[in-house]
Order: sequence, then C-alpha cells, then structure tokens
Amino acid sequence: MLVVMQEGASEAQTEAVINRLVEMGFNVHRSTGVRHTVLGGVGPMDDFDPAVLEVFEGVKECHRIVSPYKLASRHWRPAGTIIRIGKVEIGGPQVVSMGGPCSVESKEQIESVAASVAAAGAQVIRGGAFKPRSSPYSFQGMGEEGLQIMRAAADRHGLLVVSEVMDHLQIPLLLQYSDILQVGARNMQNFNLLRELGKVRKPILLKRGIAATIEELLLSAEYIMSGGNYEVMLCERGIRTFETSTRNTMDISAIPVLKRLTHLPVVADPSHGTGKRDYVLPMARAAVAAGADGLIVEVHPDPDHAISDGAQTLRPEQFAEMMGQVRAIAGAIGRAA
Amino acid sequence: MLVVMQEGASEAQTEAVINRLVEMGFNVHRSTGVRHTVLGGVGPMDDFDPAVLEVFEGVKECHRIVSPYKLASRHWRPAGTIIRIGKVEIGGPQVVSMGGPCSVESKEQIESVAASVAAAGAQVIRGGAFKPRSSPYSFQGMGEEGLQIMRAAADRHGLLVVSEVMDHLQIPLLLQYSDILQVGARNMQNFNLLRELGKVRKPILLKRGIAATIEELLLSAEYIMSGGNYEVMLCERGIRTFETSTRNTMDISAIPVLKRLTHLPVVADPSHGTGKRDYVLPMARAAVAAGADGLIVEVHPDPDHAISDGAQTLRPEQFAEMMGQVRAIAGAIGRAA
Amino acid sequence: MLVVMQEGASEAQTEAVINRLVEMGFNVHRSTGVRHTVLGGVGPMDDFDPAVLEVFEGVKECHRIVSPYKLASRHWRPAGTIIRIGKVEIGGPQVVSMGGPCSVESKEQIESVAASVAAAGAQVIRGGAFKPRSSPYSFQGMGEEGLQIMRAAADRHGLLVVSEVMDHLQIPLLLQYSDILQVGARNMQNFNLLRELGKVRKPILLKRGIAATIEELLLSAEYIMSGGNYEVMLCERGIRTFETSTRNTMDISAIPVLKRLTHLPVVADPSHGTGKRDYVLPMARAAVAAGADGLIVEVHPDPDHAISDGAQTLRPEQFAEMMGQVRAIAGAIGRAA
Amino acid sequence: MLVVMQEGASEAQTEAVINRLVEMGFNVHRSTGVRHTVLGGVGPMDDFDPAVLEVFEGVKECHRIVSPYKLASRHWRPAGTIIRIGKVEIGGPQVVSMGGPCSVESKEQIESVAASVAAAGAQVIRGGAFKPRSSPYSFQGMGEEGLQIMRAAADRHGLLVVSEVMDHLQIPLLLQYSDILQVGARNMQNFNLLRELGKVRKPILLKRGIAATIEELLLSAEYIMSGGNYEVMLCERGIRTFETSTRNTMDISAIPVLKRLTHLPVVADPSHGTGKRDYVLPMARAAVAAGADGLIVEVHPDPDHAISDGAQTLRPEQFAEMMGQVRAIAGAIGRAA
Repeated sequence: MLVVMQEGASEAQTEAVINRLVEMGFNVHRSTGVRHTVLGGVGPMDDFDPAVLEVFEGVKECHRIVSPYKLASRHWRPAGTIIRIGKVEIGGPQVVSMGGPCSVESKEQIESVAASVAAAGAQVIRGGAFKPRSSPYSFQGMGEEGLQIMRAAADRHGLLVVSEVMDHLQIPLLLQYSDILQVGARNMQNFNLLRELGKVRKPILLKRGIAATIEELLLSAEYIMSGGNYEVMLCERGIRTFETSTRNTMDISAIPVLKRLTHLPVVADPSHGTGKRDYVLPMARAAVAAGADGLIVEVHPDPDHAISDGAQTLRPEQFAEMMGQVRAIAGAIGRAA
Repeated sequence: MLVVMQEGASEAQTEAVINRLVEMGFNVHRSTGVRHTVLGGVGPMDDFDPAVLEVFEGVKECHRIVSPYKLASRHWRPAGTIIRIGKVEIGGPQVVSMGGPCSVESKEQIESVAASVAAAGAQVIRGGAFKPRSSPYSFQGMGEEGLQIMRAAADRHGLLVVSEVMDHLQIPLLLQYSDILQVGARNMQNFNLLRELGKVRKPILLKRGIAATIEELLLSAEYIMSGGNYEVMLCERGIRTFETSTRNTMDISAIPVLKRLTHLPVVADPSHGTGKRDYVLPMARAAVAAGADGLIVEVHPDPDHAISDGAQTLRPEQFAEMMGQVRAIAGAIGRAA
Repeated sequence: MLVVMQEGASEAQTEAVINRLVEMGFNVHRSTGVRHTVLGGVGPMDDFDPAVLEVFEGVKECHRIVSPYKLASRHWRPAGTIIRIGKVEIGGPQVVSMGGPCSVESKEQIESVAASVAAAGAQVIRGGAFKPRSSPYSFQGMGEEGLQIMRAAADRHGLLVVSEVMDHLQIPLLLQYSDILQVGARNMQNFNLLRELGKVRKPILLKRGIAATIEELLLSAEYIMSGGNYEVMLCERGIRTFETSTRNTMDISAIPVLKRLTHLPVVADPSHGTGKRDYVLPMARAAVAAGADGLIVEVHPDPDHAISDGAQTLRPEQFAEMMGQVRAIAGAIGRAA
Repeated sequence: MLVVMQEGASEAQTEAVINRLVEMGFNVHRSTGVRHTVLGGVGPMDDFDPAVLEVFEGVKECHRIVSPYKLASRHWRPAGTIIRIGKVEIGGPQVVSMGGPCSVESKEQIESVAASVAAAGAQVIRGGAFKPRSSPYSFQGMGEEGLQIMRAAADRHGLLVVSEVMDHLQIPLLLQYSDILQVGARNMQNFNLLRELGKVRKPILLKRGIAATIEELLLSAEYIMSGGNYEVMLCERGIRTFETSTRNTMDISAIPVLKRLTHLPVVADPSHGTGKRDYVLPMARAAVAAGADGLIVEVHPDPDHAISDGAQTLRPEQFAEMMGQVRAIAGAIGRAA
C-alpha cells in the first residue's frame, strides 16, 4: 500500500492515515519529499480497496502494490499451464480449435456440425443447451436433451464437448455430458457460480465480460482456482466500446497481456468478438498470430436459419477454410493448429 | 424490419432477402429509389436480430422498427407507474430516499444507521446480507442473520427494507424479510434470476449493468414483467467509461431518457455512481434535478471502518445534510423529498 | 516518482532502475518490503511518462506523484477564479447563461435570438462563424460577416459574445469581435492553438474533448495558462461512451470533480451533452444542481430549419422556460441565475 | 432517409414530417404497417443529420440510407487503391514497413535508426519534427532541422520519409522534405488542415482519432479526397476504452472492416496501439494476419533515453526480429513483407 499525501497536507492528516494503516495491520514507512509525503504500508492484507484511504483528508492518491490475484498470476507457475483432456492439450504448442452452433437445435444439426468440424481438424465441439437470451420472448435452449445430443455426436467423431453452465444448479448436468464447462461473459462475475466451479474437477472456459478489465478477468479465475480447480482457460470475446461497425471490439491485445500476466491458457472467440461472419476469418488469424492457445468459433450447417447468432456463424466450408488459414499462421510462428 | 440494399445490389440478391423475410412470416413492401432499394417487412416477430439479414449478400444495413420491449414501454402505461408499499409511493410526486450500509455488519451498526436515516427523513433502509465481491478472499456477507437484523431495525424505525438477491435460491429468504428485492448491476442479465423474480409479488429494484445500454436495461425489466410482476423500479448507478477520476461515470441523462421511454420509476445511486464520498451530495442533487423518483445512498456510522465500499459511504450527518439539499432541489421542481 | 519492483526482481534489475532515476536527476529512497521493493524518486522533473520505467525488466508498476499541471490546480489559487467581463462575473455566486445558435446564419436570425436570450435573462450570446463540420460537403460558416452580425446584435441587447476559434490564424479576428474565445472539443489538444491563446488577454472557454480525461482537460488549460492567460473556463459537453440513446454521455460528475481539482470556473453544455432538445432542460437543471458556474445552450428561432445541430437546439420559449427552472435550482443551492 | 413513426402517432404528426421532407427536396414514399408508419425519403441531399427529424413529435427513429462518404467508399474503386511512391507500392501485395523514432532528436540518432531499419528491410523512415505534446512543458520538436536530417539519412539508405504535419502552415515545409504527410490522431478532425491537404499532391497517412468511429475516419479521408488528393492511407492506432493495461485498445477488427468499406490502403501502428514495447511484436503480427497493408512502428537506438514515447519504442534488434516475424505471417497469407 502506497499513500501519497497532498502538497501541504498537515501533520495531523498524515498521522490519521498512519494510525489507520497501523490499525489495519500494516507496518508503515514514511518518506518525506520536497512536495509530498509518501507512506508505504507493508502488511498481511491483500484485499483492500485503495479508495478507502483516498477519501481521507489530505490524501492525494493511494496505490495497492500487491496484485489482488495470486494463483492466477504467472509468477505462481512461470512455465505456464497445459490443460490435458484425453489427447488434447490446451496451452501447449498446438492451437486448439472448437467449433459448433450457438444453440443446439436438433440431432441432425449437431451430427452435421460434428462431422464437418472434425473433418476440418477441430478438437472440440461447442453448442449451448441453456441459452442466456436478452429477450424473454426468445428460444431458451434444449436443456439436457441438447447435452445428450452433443455428447453422442462428439463421441462418434472423436471430439470433446464444451457447453455453457448458466447457473450453479446446472453443474451436475454439465459434468455428466461436457468435457469443458463454459462460463459466459454475463456470468464472469457471478461469484456464487464461480465458487461452485472451484469445487469441480473439470476444466473451465471463462469468458471475459464485455466491460471487464483484464484484472477483473484474472480475479474471476482466482475465484475458481481458490476452490482448488486450477484448470481454467480464459477467453477474449470482445469488449464494449463506442464503435458500432462490429458487435463488440475484439481486444486482441488482451492475448499478449494475459500471456504475460498469467500462466493460464488463452482462447479467442472471433464470432462474438466481431458479430459478423465476414470478419471471423481475419480475426481468427489475428488471434493466433498474437499468441492465442485456442479458438472457439460458431459454425452451423445453415447459419441463415440458425435460431441464434446466425450473423456471426460460419458455414462448414468457411470453417474449413479458416482452419487452413489458421494452420498457416500457426506454422509461421512455430506452432501447430 | 427495414432492409436497405447496397447501391448496385443485384436483383437476385434482393430476391434472396425478400424470400427469407417471407419465410420468416413478414409481409414485404419494396421501394426502389435512385440509389438504394429498401424493403419494409411487417410481421408477427418481435425478437429478431437485424444482424442476421445484414450478412446477406447485397445488404447495406437492417433496422428493427418495433421496440423489443412492450410491457416496459411508456406506450403501455402512459400515465406512469406508482409503486405503493405501505404508505410509501415510488414514482409519485415524492422523491423517495433509501439509505444504509453496503454490508450488514452487526446489530449495533444497523440500529445506528436505521435511527439516523429515519431521523433524516428517509423512507427505506438498504443493506446487503449477501455480497457479490470481486475477490474470493473478501467478506461474503452475514446471510439470513443480516436480514433479520435489518427487518427488526426497520420495523422499530418505521422504515421499509431493500436488500439484494444474488441468486434465485435466495428469493424465499429475501421475500420473508425485505420489502423490495434488489438486483445488482452484475446480475442485470442473469436471466434465470429475472425469470424467477417475475413470479414474485414484491417490488424489484433493478440496477443497470455497468456496460448495459438503456435498451438492455428495459429488456431486463421486460423479463421480470413478462412473468407478471409489474412493480419494477430502474436504477442508474454509473457506467464504465475511460474516465478514471470517478469509479464509474454516472449517466444522469439516463434519468430523462428513461422517463421518456418507460412508465417505470427511476432511482439513482450516487454512491456507486461516483465511488467517492465527496461527490455523492452534488450528484444526489443533480439526479433529483434531472427527475429521479428516488435515491439510494450508502450510509455507515463509521465509513472509514466499513467492511466494504467505505470510500463512497456517507457519515450519518452527511446523509442528513444531503436530505436537506435534496428537499430544496425537489421543492424547486415542484416535488417533495 | 514511485517505482514498485516485481516480486522476485533481482538486485541487478533494481540497480538498473535506480541508476536511471539518478541519471534523470531524482534522489532515490529505497524501501524493501516482504514481497516488493519500492523506490521513491524525488526530483526536479515534472513532465515524465511513468510508462518509460514500467518497461524496465523487473518493474511491476510506476506512479507519478506530482500532478502534471500546476497553474490549473486548486492548490495554486484555493479561493477559486472569478472571470470578470464588464458586469458579468463567471465563477462567482451567479450562474451565467449563454445562449444562441450553433451557426450564425443571418442578421435576422441573430437579432431574433439576441432579443429572446436577453429577455430570458442570459448574459452571453453564442454563435459559430467558423464551423468544424465532419462532412466536407456541409456549410462551413459565415466567417467575419457572422462575427460582425453577432457583435452588433449583442451590443444592442447588452450581451457579451462567445464564439469559436478553430485555428490560430483566426485569433485576431475573434479578438476584434468576441468577448470570450471558445476552443471546441475537437481542438482541445490542438497545442499550437492553445499556445497562441496563452498570449491573448481575453477569456477562453475550453471545451472538453469527447474522449478526454479530466486530467487531460486540465493539462490543456495549463497550456493556455503557462503562456500567461489565466482566464480559462472549462466546459463539460459530453463524452463518448457505448450508450447511443444520447449523442454523447454528459459527464455531470465532471463538474464536482473539476470544482475540487481546479480553481477555474466550470460551464456545462447540455445541448452537445445530450444531442436532443427534450433532454436539454433536465440536464441544465442537473448541471446547476451539481455546481456548474455557467450554462451554454443552443437556441434558434426555428430549430427545425437550423443549418446545423437543430435536433439539440431549443426554441426561444423553451430557453425562457429553462432559465426559469435554472433560477429555481440555483436558488435552492444558494446561488442566483 | 427512413423515418419510423411511433406507434399511435397522429396523422397530423405524420403530415408534419412529410412536409418537412418535401421541403428539403425529398420524394416521400409512405408505408403504413400494423403498428408503425414508415416514411422513405429519396432526395438529393447527402449531408443530413437524422437527429433533426428524430425530435419531431411522433417520430420514433430516423435512419440515413446513403453513406455520407462517396470517394472513400469501396464502391467508388472496387479494385482497391495502390499508392506508388518511387518503387514502393502501398496497398499492393507487399506489406510496407515504416520505422523510426517518435521525435527526431539528433543527426546521429537518425543516421543510426535509418541504417538499422533499412537493414531490417523497412521501406520508410518515420520521425516527428513537430511534436504535439499534452504538456506545455515538454520538448516540442526540432522543426525544419529535424526534417533535413531525416531527408538526408533517408536518401543515404534508400528510404522514403513520413513525418507529421500538425498545422496547415507547416505543409510547404513538409512537402519539401517528406514523401508522406502524416495527420496525427488529434488532428483527424482538424478540418482546416484536411482541406488544405486535399490540395496537395503527395500521399497522406491519416491516423484514426482515439475516439473516432470508422465512419468518422472515412469522412475525414473524404475531406481530403474531395479536394482532389486521392492518395490517402488510413491508420489504426488504438482507441480509448475502459481497459488500462494497454495505453489504448488497438482495434484490429478495424482492419478487415476498413478493407470492406473502402478502397484505401490500411496501415497499423502497434506502438501507439499498445503503448508498451513488449506488446508491439505480437500486435504487429496480428495486424498483418488481419490484412493490414503496412505497419508503422517506433524504433530508437536507445529507447530508455528517448525524449518521447520510449516505453512503446523498439530497439533496433527488436525491430529486426519483428520484420522477420512479419515476413513469416505475410507469407502465410500469400503476401510479402
């Protein structure tokens, strides 16, 4: 904890801050400069809101010097985490690809998608059985039947399954059918859900909220990890900005920033990141070029008739084309895909 | 649905769009201009993502012309909604004030706060028994005991209780102790929770998510209302922008925009809106001047030692001062407070 | 300058940072904690980008502890600045109102506006003679003739004139006809222009850029003040966010933040702040309630036929109504308007 | 122009809008649906703010259907523009690289940079002789001497020169020494400057403002092109968002969006886009993978002692490494670099 006093702060104001820091368990070092007095607090507390001291009289600003996350920091595991599921390794030299529809709609749809994403070289099928929809009048998902359909198709084609868990009550069902449990962007700070996922022993794909900072994403990963589940992969899927020509602004720079700050694998979602089919291929290439460990992309046999997210969903032949391009990019930076 | 074709779009492209619209149940009107062909679709569908047609070949842009919310729109109840709880009316001529700590910490704390907010003229005590915390290492709330403490203190001082429900499993408990159920900003799009709150028959205070548009806030209200619970009040509490001198940017203009678009009462939260105690008073005045029907403000007998949100929490005497100022502003625009 | 070293930073890395700080003229205090070493640098330099040290090996973060602006800080003139022009005082107890069209269009238009804003009690007429337009095909302003028209109408009605200077070459012309020189949001960081305005001895109305932080606004004021022109008033006129129901998001909280950080008067522009006529009145009330020293509002005898900005422009009778409301709000907080 | 009337709008309200449209020169088509009346206006006007009609009584929303830019649209030159300067082609199959310091500081510095960027395979040297600095106390650039130094070093090493023009008065000087005139992000909407650059016959590198939409960037290009100078290249260099771990958020998706909307070449600036040296290489790779036609990157022989922007500046050996990686990525998508 560093507290910078204002120019001209009185001795009594400085004392009040020191007393409060001591009371909180900090050892305080005081350093008096020409203009500003600076107090350095070293202590046992990690979870502390610097704003609390900033409203003290005479305080100019306050900075936390210890990161609020530990298990998620690269320092904790410098070599990086590789998540192994069967033969698939996420976070290793291979870029892992996940493809499938936004919503599971029917057995035929999933069989068709599974066949085409497997043929294109993907390792994982995605598909939502429970759908968070912003309108109450929209399709809400097939539920357990959808999961069964996904599992069966995945097994037939040698794929893993990733599917979204919207609520901690759905966890047992997801554990039964899915290899990776996805936490959607809207649930990134659903702390009850995160806590329960910490008790699970299956990998979690944690999506960044549309207004979440990278630090907040890492804190949400820490929530899960603090429960003992260390297999978390992080997913950049676009943030909300003023620009409207894309659905969100895909923050490609989050990929190298995360690779520096954390040991966890980083996945990119160019479908939600852009919201438009035409931009998925170039952004998939960009994500891999920037260092992403995996891609998750929406694919549907007939996107123009998809129940949800059709605009950002690739046709199977586009997905195959994307896989070819991604392999070339991965090769150019010494990886496989 | 309006679809604007690109300059030079071919007849076949236009036909493909018309066919898709007809297939979706729209009656299509075609209007050919000098540069652009425009297709107007009139149909039964309300929940439709215009992006789906924007990715058709030859389409320039696509606009939905029916609002995606109905029950929440002012058109549905032009005179405005007044929510009555005991003698308190929210949405009427009186500006309603709610005050209390971020977290319920102890019986003594709540008794002290209840006495002071009642004395200052507030009608409702607020306080969190279940806390969504961004760090897993933070205090998580007193749970049911906290609610009991709040109820008892509120009854002693003739106050109503508002408290946050974080999860649909907590609803029965909240119904037992709280007069108003608050949905926090992080849960604004927790659709499972919203759906269950639609079955409840107590008023809901729905906070705007930090990255939610006003339309999305209204869609979340619609979620609740579509279940039959029409007593929803909306709460502006700051959005995330690039500015860092305040914790969030309080969107005061959301107040007149909401008053125009919806019949639901609008409450303002200058504590979360600014994140700093010094700015709560001027922003409470501004919110009432802009037309807010209520205020929700954090108050603690000793904010510097509050377990959470201390920086944005008023001392009791500051809350009393705020109430005096708010009364003056309300009087200036022909309301009471 | 505070430099926080990473956990486990080597002695050599710490030495490298110390050496660089010393080389830059800082006296360095070193404080070694359990986890982190912190270096405090006290020195003669004010203009220093902390990012430069953040990229040193082993550095976690770096904070500047001296504000980059001095003359603009409240510390420099704690009692606040009152700008006096004739009988008008900006920054004193009276809220000053400025009204007029976006563009000067004709003698008749300006005469009509001047008569109505004066009758409503405003002190200043605004109007643009040089227009920054985002399309090259738009009307670009009447130039000097527009300024002559404004001056004559203002003199007839006992008003002051504020008008925008887009380029330093226009300064002599503006000095001849205008009492206050306005710097538009797009020019807030046109440093050549700011430097020339520092040599002028007439008050400047400096508008906040749509993506400018409050600190950047104060730095731009410092640019002008460092040239010797201390009569700068700051204007909040909306920032760019993700919300689209208003043209910009008017950052009302910038008003109390600025009142705390600087001694300069603060003006609010609810026309550009909202972009829609219906929202100008409530936001004018909110701005005054939050502590604004002045308002600048667009008024036109026939806004639906205004050449520019018609949607956000009040009719004369709406402006008169606004003035009445603003007077009531000002009275409620002990000011006049 | 499409105007959607509100549900229940009166006939008189609809007539008022029709009359205004006719008065503005539009032919109006009226289409009456179950809920909404829609008016389609076809007319001669291109520059029209839809907000003006949105404030009419009874109007729900209003959309412009003709793009506000013409010369900059891909429709105008579907095959794309290649800008040829000597042997260098920007917008063709080769990805063009530009490297050099933020500020020209000395003859030795520029000679050293020129030698190393040329050796690494870059085609253009960059360097600022006039510096827009956010603090008035910062170094303001070497002026003409800086340009002379750049020109001489470039000629010795077979490079082109790009340098920033901050003010239209500097144009003649820049034309004398520089092959490409750069417009900085802060000047993207300095319309006086843009208009003068339309008269020039040298290529312009137009940087996107930090809060500019893609449409606004294209409108600024249109400003220049409408004067007859069609050689404009657009540069993505990061937009301002809530994320603080990078200086700006580099909008990589702007690259494919621009390639679709316009025929102009697109350049990416990963130095300003990220603000930190460590992220420049991955983001340069990402930009090229996404389809950028060029890169502009800051390089300095000793970035830790650079007068400006040191944190985001590469060492010469890092630039050489970047060039190698970029060549590999370019090759993977069938281009050269």
